[in-house]
Amino acid sequence: MAELVGNVLVGQSGGPTSVINASVAGIITEALNHECIEEVYGSLNGVLGILQEDLIDLAAQSQQQIRALKYTPGAALGTCRYKLKKQQDFERVLEVFKAHNIRYFFYIGGNDSQDTADKISKLAQQQGYELRVIGVPKTIDNDLSVTDHCPGYASAIKYIATSVREVACDNEAMGQGDLVSIVEVMGRSAGWLAAGAALAKRRDHPHDPPHIILLPEVPFNQEKVLEDIRRTLKREKFCQIVVAEGLVDADGNYVAADGSTDAFGHAQLGGAGDILADIIENGIPGVKVRVARPGLLQRCAAHAASKTDADEAFLAGEAAVEAAINGETDKMVTLVRGDSDQYKSETGLVPLSDVANSVKKLPREWINEDGISMNFQFLRYAQPLIQGEIAIPHDNGVPVFARLEKSRVDKVLPAYEV
Amino acid sequence: MAELVGNVLVGQSGGPTSVINASVAGIITEALNHECIEEVYGSLNGVLGILQEDLIDLAAQSQQQIRALKYTPGAALGTCRYKLKKQQDFERVLEVFKAHNIRYFFYIGGNDSQDTADKISKLAQQQGYELRVIGVPKTIDNDLSVTDHCPGYASAIKYIATSVREVACDNEAMGQGDLVSIVEVMGRSAGWLAAGAALAKRRDHPHDPPHIILLPEVPFNQEKVLEDIRRTLKREKFCQIVVAEGLVDADGNYVAADGSTDAFGHAQLGGAGDILADIIENGIPGVKVRVARPGLLQRCAAHAASKTDADEAFLAGEAAVEAAINGETDKMVTLVRGDSDQYKSETGLVPLSDVANSVKKLPREWINEDGISMNFQFLRYAQPLIQGEIAIPHDNGVPVFARLEKSRVDKVLPAYEV
Repeated sequence: MAELVGNVLVGQSGGPTSVINASVAGIITEALNHECIEEVYGSLNGVLGILQEDLIDLAAQSQQQIRALKYTPGAALGTCRYKLKKQQDFERVLEVFKAHNIRYFFYIGGNDSQDTADKISKLAQQQGYELRVIGVPKTIDNDLSVTDHCPGYASAIKYIATSVREVACDNEAMGQGDLVSIVEVMGRSAGWLAAGAALAKRRDHPHDPPHIILLPEVPFNQEKVLEDIRRTLKREKFCQIVVAEGLVDADGNYVAADGSTDAFGHAQLGGAGDILADIIENGIPGVKVRVARPGLLQRCAAHAASKTDADEAFLAGEAAVEAAINGETDKMVTLVRGDSDQYKSETGLVPLSDVANSVKKLPREWINEDGISMNFQFLRYAQPLIQGEIAIPHDNGVPVFARLEKSRVDKVLPAYEV
Repeated sequence: MAELVGNVLVGQSGGPTSVINASVAGIITEALNHECIEEVYGSLNGVLGILQEDLIDLAAQSQQQIRALKYTPGAALGTCRYKLKKQQDFERVLEVFKAHNIRYFFYIGGNDSQDTADKISKLAQQQGYELRVIGVPKTIDNDLSVTDHCPGYASAIKYIATSVREVACDNEAMGQGDLVSIVEVMGRSAGWLAAGAALAKRRDHPHDPPHIILLPEVPFNQEKVLEDIRRTLKREKFCQIVVAEGLVDADGNYVAADGSTDAFGHAQLGGAGDILADIIENGIPGVKVRVARPGLLQRCAAHAASKTDADEAFLAGEAAVEAAINGETDKMVTLVRGDSDQYKSETGLVPLSDVANSVKKLPREWINEDGISMNFQFLRYAQPLIQGEIAIPHDNGVPVFARLEKSRVDKVLPAYEV
């Protein structure tokens, strides 16, 4: 295979995670090991930055900043939810790639983003422009079907499990038989995040909080849930509930749909916790309900991130560069779990076309028959992912995160209207 | 002064904090240094445990558990919001104290709780029962006027500032001129917690998030706030807002009052963030608003607690015992800030009657003229309090907290109807 000499472009897309920047760090670190790679650029705000030729020089960043990326939440390059639609947009992307001799394109994102990467790659092939495109997975939703798990998921559930265990201490102290505490977590179509709250339970303590996990996979049955709550209040004096924002009723309708949609046509949700609180207050007179909705904190709470997750995100970035250097293209890096009892993950590769828009469901057989708790299969899957803590440097009592120098790459093309 | 020989009783009251258990640890540790103290008991669920004679033996706990109390959130003894009202209740308290030879009573709580302690102390004096009563302050609200600051406050604002800085990374990555992100924090009548979010800004970076802090001290002016948001969106591409739940309008009415009241007659609040989101979405067409409401996490997020705070809470517990041994009674421990530039706190004592129901206001002169940011006086006050992090032991990826053995003290009195 002929060596492909040229420049690297990295982009980040979709909602950030606590560890998406670790993948950028992995890509930069590995790219600098290869002489065929001349420049390492980042596009600001994903494909938007490509369309607008807003590129920065990543090789110019200090070592210190690259290292800090490993624990910096958000997306240091900026991200976007812009979806390339027009053929003209795709043509523009290639025009920009050609203008800056981009021969390696690494796109870090979820399934919509991998779909975009796939289309860019195919267009380059059609046009005979040699380009290697490798996707790097990220999403706290853990809904990419081709990988054992997604970088970003583990840190989100470590934060959720940590928070639930802490709130449980508070609830237990206050509980006198009438306290219900709800934590509303993200999870539009799958209960991966809500399920993660089960990690707050001690081993062999099934009655530990969270007492009730309400998943999108299990249609909401008001009478059953009220009965579950009454039983828990009797036994534990408080009842801690974790509810996924995407909870659905028996007809498959979102309990908390607000009628609007986002740029990708997905229903916008919010307030499942508050709606549930109303139902409980009406259904169990005299009960007090407290609702916490950590919202975006779930995907950026670096102070409770998983070291395993950050390490894997970095590894996935490195693996993407290695694959491209080895001639692979139109693939996404995956995380593959070893067969041994001792958890170990390696990276793999799958065609981008296998990734796009497929959704990984939380296996129904990992949910206990009660419909409100997770069994050992889920715990065996999730527990290894949240191991290890990251000591983030603090200054003046708050964490200090990376800030990339925005050393702009000179624009060479006329402006483009997005 | 004659040595008073007898037993200690410790109770916790009101909403827990991340460090209220550190004060229990301080009390137990110091009590065991004094031979005149025979037994160290804890009452379960504050005054409720006294009325019902639900006492546990604290001296029987392992050293390991006592040490773990220093970073365990919640209230390990349980707490309550029960308010002693009837004369009969107070009589019962003394009856229980006499039955168990309680000569030292330490009550950890906010102003309502110190009021209760004061009344118990006065009744004991009237009846000629020798009892030393020392209160230990706690409240994330920081609203006790007699102390420089309250144990619990610093950990809450460290968590808030940390979370705001993390959410800012996410917001900055997503911001394209139309993103408003709201974090709703506690603070019923004073903006101490919301103000603490200002610690998320880097020194000399006034434009850092949070861009807008909405305090109960500054009546909500819809048009001005919308204008502040528009200006921030133009400058920063996103706007991060921290709003106190107790935000009031120009007439002094809570923006988010829901009409109900708690056991102490305080208005119940919730939803200032959601109400503000509606106002912004209607006032600035096309803008996207995300709301996070960490709720109880603010007072129990031990994983982002302040070491300074935990150390001071422990110290306050120790000081309470020392004061009682030295013959003091009917006092509350305070934290006193030294005069030097280098922050240093010592403990002091004030009469309980000076504490009860007085409210410490956030000084108006610590708020900038723009009404939405804090000046250097606040930062000089708050910054030293959040210094230092606590490394909490983890097992299986989640923090491990203390669990007290509930070694019950034998009841000797007839049951009492609460």
